[in-house]
Amino acid sequence: MEAHLDSTAAGSKRLIEAMRYSFFSGGKRIRPQLVYGAAKTVRDSQAKKQPTTEIMPETYVAAAVEAIHTYSLIHDDLPAMDDDDLRRGKPTCHKAFDEATAILAGDALLNLGFQILIDGIIEFGKPMVRAAQAVGVSTGIGGMVTGQMLDLLGEETEPTLEKVQLIHKNKTGALLHACVLAGGMVAEPNDEQEKALSVFGKSVGLAFQIVDDLLDLEQSTETLGKRAGKDEEQNKMTYPAVMGIDKSYELAGELTQKAEEALKVFGDSGKVLQAIAKLILRRDH
Amino acid sequence: MEAHLDSTAAGSKRLIEAMRYSFFSGGKRIRPQLVYGAAKTVRDSQAKKQPTTEIMPETYVAAAVEAIHTYSLIHDDLPAMDDDDLRRGKPTCHKAFDEATAILAGDALLNLGFQILIDGIIEFGKPMVRAAQAVGVSTGIGGMVTGQMLDLLGEETEPTLEKVQLIHKNKTGALLHACVLAGGMVAEPNDEQEKALSVFGKSVGLAFQIVDDLLDLEQSTETLGKRAGKDEEQNKMTYPAVMGIDKSYELAGELTQKAEEALKVFGDSGKVLQAIAKLILRRDH
Repeated sequence: MEAHLDSTAAGSKRLIEAMRYSFFSGGKRIRPQLVYGAAKTVRDSQAKKQPTTEIMPETYVAAAVEAIHTYSLIHDDLPAMDDDDLRRGKPTCHKAFDEATAILAGDALLNLGFQILIDGIIEFGKPMVRAAQAVGVSTGIGGMVTGQMLDLLGEETEPTLEKVQLIHKNKTGALLHACVLAGGMVAEPNDEQEKALSVFGKSVGLAFQIVDDLLDLEQSTETLGKRAGKDEEQNKMTYPAVMGIDKSYELAGELTQKAEEALKVFGDSGKVLQAIAKLILRRDH
Repeated sequence: MEAHLDSTAAGSKRLIEAMRYSFFSGGKRIRPQLVYGAAKTVRDSQAKKQPTTEIMPETYVAAAVEAIHTYSLIHDDLPAMDDDDLRRGKPTCHKAFDEATAILAGDALLNLGFQILIDGIIEFGKPMVRAAQAVGVSTGIGGMVTGQMLDLLGEETEPTLEKVQLIHKNKTGALLHACVLAGGMVAEPNDEQEKALSVFGKSVGLAFQIVDDLLDLEQSTETLGKRAGKDEEQNKMTYPAVMGIDKSYELAGELTQKAEEALKVFGDSGKVLQAIAKLILRRDH
């Protein structure tokens, strides 16, 4: 990412500054962890050597998904969308810069994510093509963008479990699922392994969002690094809103268990992803 | 595009509606014409058969660049950017829908453009990879997004020829150049042909923008389908602003000549692209 952002710094310093500001702002990097974890898991279980080069195919996928995730945060925070002033404990991009710069920095990060995927295809060929496709589907009208649209429209209607599921599946679930799948794909899993990664990715993706909903309710703005309690205020569709806090915890636990079970096909090699799943469930921000 | 937009219509009708509204709004389709023209030119000059399948590799490139071009128009028209109410004779996307929907429809179209390029790679392999890379570089921080950022920043400073050139090269020139190059690449040109396409693309890209600047000054809002005279009002960096109307016409003419000369390596096969170049220079909107 450093290299990508430096190489074109001549164009517009302000644009690059805004991209760096949001990208290097101390995110938890959950998505890259899932990508790396999935690739390692597949290789370990097939007794393949881990690549010894500095840049592995999963490096491209990890950088791409984090760039695309960062774009989505910048755009979601805009005044016309969720109108947030605080993100990762710092002013949001449009507050630190301005709205136009934030829109363009988001656009540029989305574009950069795909450029990195295409560069990865040039470097590593076929396994990267499938991974790139999985990411692309999850971030467009088949996933993330549609999720954000449904989320905004949902603010004006009565929450139901069905609507919450549809929003969460698209808004955050699709990309998290794609991280696991695409990360695994670059290591060329067999069909059984790919299916297991898909189940794991879907379950973890949903568990992640339920925990996110619960944290928004129960944690302070300081711990979260973003404004707490805003879901309720903005009448957002959340799991606690439709099934209560206790049931939400229960469901998150069940999903984590389902995710762990899916990893059984990998035997001992599944431990890395299991650890990441625990981390996602037990985080405090 | 119809198929792509229909297949996911279940997600959010409003999002798809906004994407369709802007995509199917009677644009001139100059970029797809350049893509198809370049591919045909390379094949004709190498006495290769034109593909007889319904979907050729250039179909993917053409659909992708038009989706990406449409996204850039939607975002450029936003209140935080150029704040335009009229585009192609109709209300702009954020006027017909709302700001949030317009931002997301733009995001989704940019994403879709890259999805289509990746689908093309799956279908046609290597030549499409290079084409996808050329498009990706031209629309990100190496081109279009940077151009729009410089354009916005430029409104607050004194116009100079150097600044106008830098803005135009990035904002519109880079993608037009990429259309010619990527369109040619899918037909696998030799080095001399690829160089010629690059010179043609650069010259036509710049001529296009000079003509655009002139039309903004000289045509009516009705003919343009967008508000005329707004460049001057917004203190935009334009060629007429830094070198006057007559010199701008002269330069556009010189560039078109340079573009036509570059086509000589293609012999008679260059006629298609020559016709498109003329069309770009002599348009009235």
